[in-house]
Order: sequence, then structure tokens, then C-alpha cells
Amino acid sequence: MGGGIRGARASGSSGGGRLPPVPARVITFLTDYGLDDDFAGVCHGVIATICPEARVIDITHGVPRHDVRAGALILRSAIRYTPVGVHLAIVDPDVGARRRAVALRTGDDRLFVGPDNGLLSLAATDAGGVIEVVDIAGSPWRLEPVSATFHGRDIFAPVAARLAAGEPLGSAGDPSDPDGLVTLELPLPRHEDGSLIAHAIYVDRFGNVRLNVGHDQLIGGEAALGVGLGDVVELEAGAHGRHRAHYARTFADMATGELLLYEDADGTLAVAVSRGSAAARLGLAAGDELWIRPA
Amino acid sequence: MGGGIRGARASGSSGGGRLPPVPARVITFLTDYGLDDDFAGVCHGVIATICPEARVIDITHGVPRHDVRAGALILRSAIRYTPVGVHLAIVDPDVGARRRAVALRTGDDRLFVGPDNGLLSLAATDAGGVIEVVDIAGSPWRLEPVSATFHGRDIFAPVAARLAAGEPLGSAGDPSDPDGLVTLELPLPRHEDGSLIAHAIYVDRFGNVRLNVGHDQLIGGEAALGVGLGDVVELEAGAHGRHRAHYARTFADMATGELLLYEDADGTLAVAVSRGSAAARLGLAAGDELWIRPA
Amino acid sequence: MGGGIRGARASGSSGGGRLPPVPARVITFLTDYGLDDDFAGVCHGVIATICPEARVIDITHGVPRHDVRAGALILRSAIRYTPVGVHLAIVDPDVGARRRAVALRTGDDRLFVGPDNGLLSLAATDAGGVIEVVDIAGSPWRLEPVSATFHGRDIFAPVAARLAAGEPLGSAGDPSDPDGLVTLELPLPRHEDGSLIAHAIYVDRFGNVRLNVGHDQLIGGEAALGVGLGDVVELEAGAHGRHRAHYARTFADMATGELLLYEDADGTLAVAVSRGSAAARLGLAAGDELWIRPA
Repeated sequence: MGGGIRGARASGSSGGGRLPPVPARVITFLTDYGLDDDFAGVCHGVIATICPEARVIDITHGVPRHDVRAGALILRSAIRYTPVGVHLAIVDPDVGARRRAVALRTGDDRLFVGPDNGLLSLAATDAGGVIEVVDIAGSPWRLEPVSATFHGRDIFAPVAARLAAGEPLGSAGDPSDPDGLVTLELPLPRHEDGSLIAHAIYVDRFGNVRLNVGHDQLIGGEAALGVGLGDVVELEAGAHGRHRAHYARTFADMATGELLLYEDADGTLAVAVSRGSAAARLGLAAGDELWIRPA
Repeated sequence: MGGGIRGARASGSSGGGRLPPVPARVITFLTDYGLDDDFAGVCHGVIATICPEARVIDITHGVPRHDVRAGALILRSAIRYTPVGVHLAIVDPDVGARRRAVALRTGDDRLFVGPDNGLLSLAATDAGGVIEVVDIAGSPWRLEPVSATFHGRDIFAPVAARLAAGEPLGSAGDPSDPDGLVTLELPLPRHEDGSLIAHAIYVDRFGNVRLNVGHDQLIGGEAALGVGLGDVVELEAGAHGRHRAHYARTFADMATGELLLYEDADGTLAVAVSRGSAAARLGLAAGDELWIRPA
Repeated sequence: MGGGIRGARASGSSGGGRLPPVPARVITFLTDYGLDDDFAGVCHGVIATICPEARVIDITHGVPRHDVRAGALILRSAIRYTPVGVHLAIVDPDVGARRRAVALRTGDDRLFVGPDNGLLSLAATDAGGVIEVVDIAGSPWRLEPVSATFHGRDIFAPVAARLAAGEPLGSAGDPSDPDGLVTLELPLPRHEDGSLIAHAIYVDRFGNVRLNVGHDQLIGGEAALGVGLGDVVELEAGAHGRHRAHYARTFADMATGELLLYEDADGTLAVAVSRGSAAARLGLAAGDELWIRPA
């Protein structure tokens, strides 16, 4: 899946001669806060106060409210294309309740900060697996008094900023057991009556629907449908009837309004309508089943 | 109210030895421009052209259109969590009319730039009060020709950028009298028939409704309702009937769909529905009255 | 049209003495990706990985989906107010199809990167005209494997980042002929039956409608309507009837709800409703005709 750009730093941008000071790490930032309010902005303010040198990259603040799975999927694919750094992620429906707050280091030396509700789990696995975990609920770096509802401001952002400034992970809180972390269960596709039954796992703002299957499950391999590029398939979702779609390379290969199945930019199968919304056409929302069969 | 993070700079991020050049100040930026158009982006461009070293922190550009009071409330609470810097704020329904454009310095050495319509007044009071004011309508730093409708680009952003670059406030325009500044009148809660009558002063994107009362007015003190954590209260707003709510610590203490009254992250009382919208449930918009009484 | 701020750098912000290292160029960034998903954030990640020193200014990611003309108009007016730099712009309905991907240099030394579908053409003409073009579809700087649907991540952002890092345009791909670039045709206003027939070319989030006429076509010159400031005009759009509007300087000169025609911040004529939406009042969308005549 996907590519990422490890090691792709431009040769022309490296400095020469004298050693520069150790730079602050990049902080990537993903939440479901939206941008209508000042939640994300206030976290930026906290980071800039604690570690003025840190560069913050907003991955998105548009994760659907409380949708931990959508956040986890976006985080996993996005950080393949960001510098190795501190990855701050907050989708936290249980803020103020018993869920733990954690900071962790992965095998490829990324640091993650967020609630322990599965949000970090897919990305952490993808980034070499969890090597070290600290519980930061009682972090000495948190802002006092800690509010019951805005841990982004009071716990997560301050911890991310201190880590970006180079302070050691072990000082962020209490050591904890990686095996105790919450992990996400994603639905698995299955075969039934000659169909491949996939699940919609994410709908983007264009109405493109990402599925939980790789294109090898469609076109090749043991349990594949044996569908090839250009073939027509039948799609069926709930009570919305049957639809014909082409297995195509990209939107632009289709006429406006036509339905297509394609390999998306992260290497997973997705459904789209050329210059339209597949989610609307098929009545698909995240979590729904989609039956795919040769036409 | 609130905490803020004055003096919280991480020890690990300070440089050593040689003195660094005086850094440009941080500019915080709040507007009702939205992000669909290029208004905010163009102001960023102006700032980057005039003071490339300035770091700009977007607090939010999602203030409801022309809602000076919402902007003033957000600005006041947000800057407690940003570095001391130049605070650029634009919610300006009367752009091009007689309202003044100002830049001012407060007691704790923050600089504010924006229209003189009350937008800056709550934050300036919170930041030590206004010490010095200049009228910048005819600022030598403005971009010519000044448009009639986009003073953000032509007056406010250039002035903020020059101040961030270290130029003196006195050079930004004509000295003016702090006592002449427009201030905001916020509604005051009152008691009637055993009820505390509060006002909705801000609704966030989750439908959480901030009220104009501190939690001491609910649970303690002379004129308090005598409600304690865990108690049930009755809420009534306009014609939307009576609703039972728990006085709770956070959303997560409640079952999905339950109504709660709680102390929000800025220390004021707010109403929420766990994983839902209190504004929708109660039919509450900013400015509306909410009657609170023991159940 | 417009002013821009060439040469407006604040005197107080220039360094002294020792020569600084050649700074990375600013990258401005405009797309129709929206901010709900991580498309724009991932491009930021790619840029930060390749050229950590680059400062990225988001002009907007709210261009209406696939609306190349709206993107081109916004880009042209916005870059007059940004530093000279690398201008990355992506509104790309034909991604993955035959349209070319290009990087180009203009007469005033700006670099543009994006699809060759007219998006860059208005800005490039405004910036001194195209001097040099390279086709970057097969750029050695692209990320492999190049996806069929996300060239922002795999081609455009990497090329912009390398250019910002100082690598030469000629190394970005294959030299190409500037005369072969796609250009945009904008509709021209015309006169008929004593009316000036304009076109709505852009509707902003406030419902203000920008027209394809300069104010000299209204108030002066040979073929002008002879309308002066304060005069009343009649506006007619499609089947939405006739409306009276004042030719005014700014919203604030009108009572709430009144319709006005005015010169907008870029020097072109626009229609607005004071504290309301002209697009809604007149039933106007981009591309629609608007008849203007003296009342």
C-alpha cells in the first residue's frame, strides 16, 4: 500500500559546513475540531508558546465528529508523506472519562500523542510498531488546571510541543505497557454467492468512497473476482438497487456521471462518479456493505 | 476564569551562547472571512511580503459573519493560550464607514490591530487594559489605493506586519484617546422566580452552548442556585419546553443523547448534549435567554 | 486593476552585516481540495519533507470543485499580494487524463506549478507573461509510483518543493513551448437596448457577486452607461425579475438588506446586499448574465 517519501529530501536544500542547531521536530496535527471554532487555533497557540521553533503541519481538522476510525485511517495514510516527527492526533469522544491519554514511540522513530482509543493504532503499526508508551494523563507538562473537556489544549498539545522541543519521551508521564493499547478492528471483506462483499470505510468530500479491499482482491490472486481493467462490474448497496460500474484507472477515463471502481491514491479500491458523488448515487456511508460482482 | 500559559516555555527549547537576533513577533489572526475565499490567504500574503520572519497563528476564520461579540469572546479566551504578540482581529460589518481602525498596546505588552467596534475590547481588558492607542485609518503603512471593502488587506494586515517586524506603535498612525474606544456590553444574568436566567453567548460547531455565567453562580456564593455536581436541573428556552439536565463534569459522564450543564474549558457554564447538539435540542441561538432552576 | 505590494517590505525587518543564506522561496498554495479531507495537508507534508525551509501560504483550498475559471481568477488577484515565489495551484478535473502538467517561469520571475488547463494562465499573463515552460508529467522529482488520481501529492507538490529549494526549472522536466499552453476565454460584457450585459464570474461566501466589468465601463468612457456614484440602476438576471440597486462605494453606505453595485477590492464591479446575499436575491451563479441599465 502507498508509497511515502522516506529519504526524498531535495539535495539542493541541505546546508553545508557548520553544524546547525538540532532543529525542532515537525508536529503534524489531525483532529475532528473543525475550523469554525478556535479549538485547533488555540492548540497552535499553546505549541507556539512552548516550542516556538516547531513547525506544525495541519493534516486536517475535518475528521467527522467523533469518528475514531476515519481519523485512524487518515492518519495512517497521511504520515507516510510527512516528515518523521511528532504526530498529534485528537478524535476523542470520551474526553474526561476513563480512556487513557498517551504518548508513544514507534519503530521508525515517530512519536505519537493522543487519546488511547485506537486513533493512533493503525498509524503506529504502519510506522514500525509501538516501542515505548507513556501515560500522560498526569503529565508534568500539562497545563493546570486541566479542563474536563479540552485535553487537546491542556494535555496533548503541551506534550507534543515539549517532545518537538527535544525533551525525552520518558519525562512526559508514566511508563506503560504497549500491549495494553486499544487497537481498532476493521471489518474484513468476504465472499458470498460469487460476490465480493466490501465495506465503505471512508467517504471524502467529493463523495468518493474508499473500500476495505486492495485491488489484488478484485483482479488477481486466489480469492479474487477475476475482474480486469475496463471490465464492467455490478455494485449493490442496501436497498439502493444495482448499478453498473467500470473498473477504470481514473475519473477522467469516464464520461461525466459514470460510475467507476478504481485504485485510489493509497492503493486501495474506491468507488467514484466522474464529476459526481458515488456516496449519493449508491446511498453509501462509512460502515455500509457494498456487494461487487462481475456484470 | 481560564488559565493560560504565561511563562510555560519549555526549558529544552532555549538556545545557548550567542544572542539571537530579535525575533519577529508572533501574529495571531482571527476573522469572519471563512476559508472558502482567499481573504485570509491574501492577508497572509501581505504579511509574508512585509515581514517574512513573522509566524502567523490562525485562531479561526470561522467567526459567524459580522458577529462582533462572538469574535470578541473567542479572541479573549484564545489569546490566553498564545504567545504575547501582535493580535490581528477583523470582524468588520462597517468596513468603509465611519468606524475607526486602531492599533493598541495593552498592559501586558500585547499589541492589537483591528476595527474599533468592540471586537478588541474584551481581550484588551483581559490583557491588562489599553495603554496606548493609534488611529490607523490614515496609516503611512497602508497599501495604496485603499479599497472601500477590504481593509484587512489594505490597512490591518500591513500594520500588523510592520509591528511584528519591530516598528514602533507610534509610527502606525495618529495618537488617540483610549477612553474613546468602543466597548462591548454583554448581557448580565439575573434571578427571577427561583430561576437563574442566563444568556447563550456562543454556540460552537458541536452545538455546545456557552452561557454568560460562571459555575460559582450555579453552585455557590450568595445568589447561587445551590446546585451541586450530579444534581438535576430544569432548563427552559423560549417556546421549546422544559428539559431536564444533569450538572456534570463532562460529556463522557453522560449517556449518548443526554443533556448536561457543565463548566467548559474556559471556566464558564455551558450546555451540551452528549454526542449531540444542545443548540438544536433547546432551540438556542446566541443572544437567547435560558432559564435554569433546580428540578 | 488592483494594486499589489511589490517592494513593500518593511524597512525594520531587513537584517544587517553578514549575508544570510539564500532563503527558500515562499510557496503559495491554491486548490479545490477543501479542508475536510487530508489532501491539502498531505501536500504540505510532502513539501516539508523535501524542502523543510519553505514557507507555505495557503491562498485558499475552497475553490469550487473543478471550477478552473474561479481558481484562475482567484490566483490572479491573490498573487499580487504575496511574495514572488513558487505558486502551486491545483484545480484539476482531468487528472490522470491527457492534460499536461507544467511548471513555468513568468516575466517577473514567479514560478507556477499546476495542470495545463488554463488555471495558471490569467495569473501568468498578469505576472509578466510566460517565459519558460517545462512539462513535468515525467519529472525526475515526482514520487513513485505516481497515482492516477492525486498528482498534487505525487507530481505538483514535489516539483514546487524542489523549485522552492532552489533547484533549476530546467531540471523539473522536458522543455516545452509556451505557445502551446491552454488559455482561458472569459466572457466579454456587451451592450444591448441601452443595457450593459455583464456576467457573474465569481460568487464569494458572503454572496457578493463579482462581474466581468470594470467600473469605467459603468461610469465613464465611450461605451459607458453614464452612471455616477449614488445613482440608481436596474438589475435583471434571468427570470428573477428587476431589482433596483444603488451605485455605492461600500456596503456600509447602505441600509441592511439594500442592493448595491460597487467597485470591489480588486477594482472590478460587483453586486452585494448589505448584510445579505446578492447571489440569493438575484438568483445569480457564476456564468450567469446580469443586465444593468439606468433606472
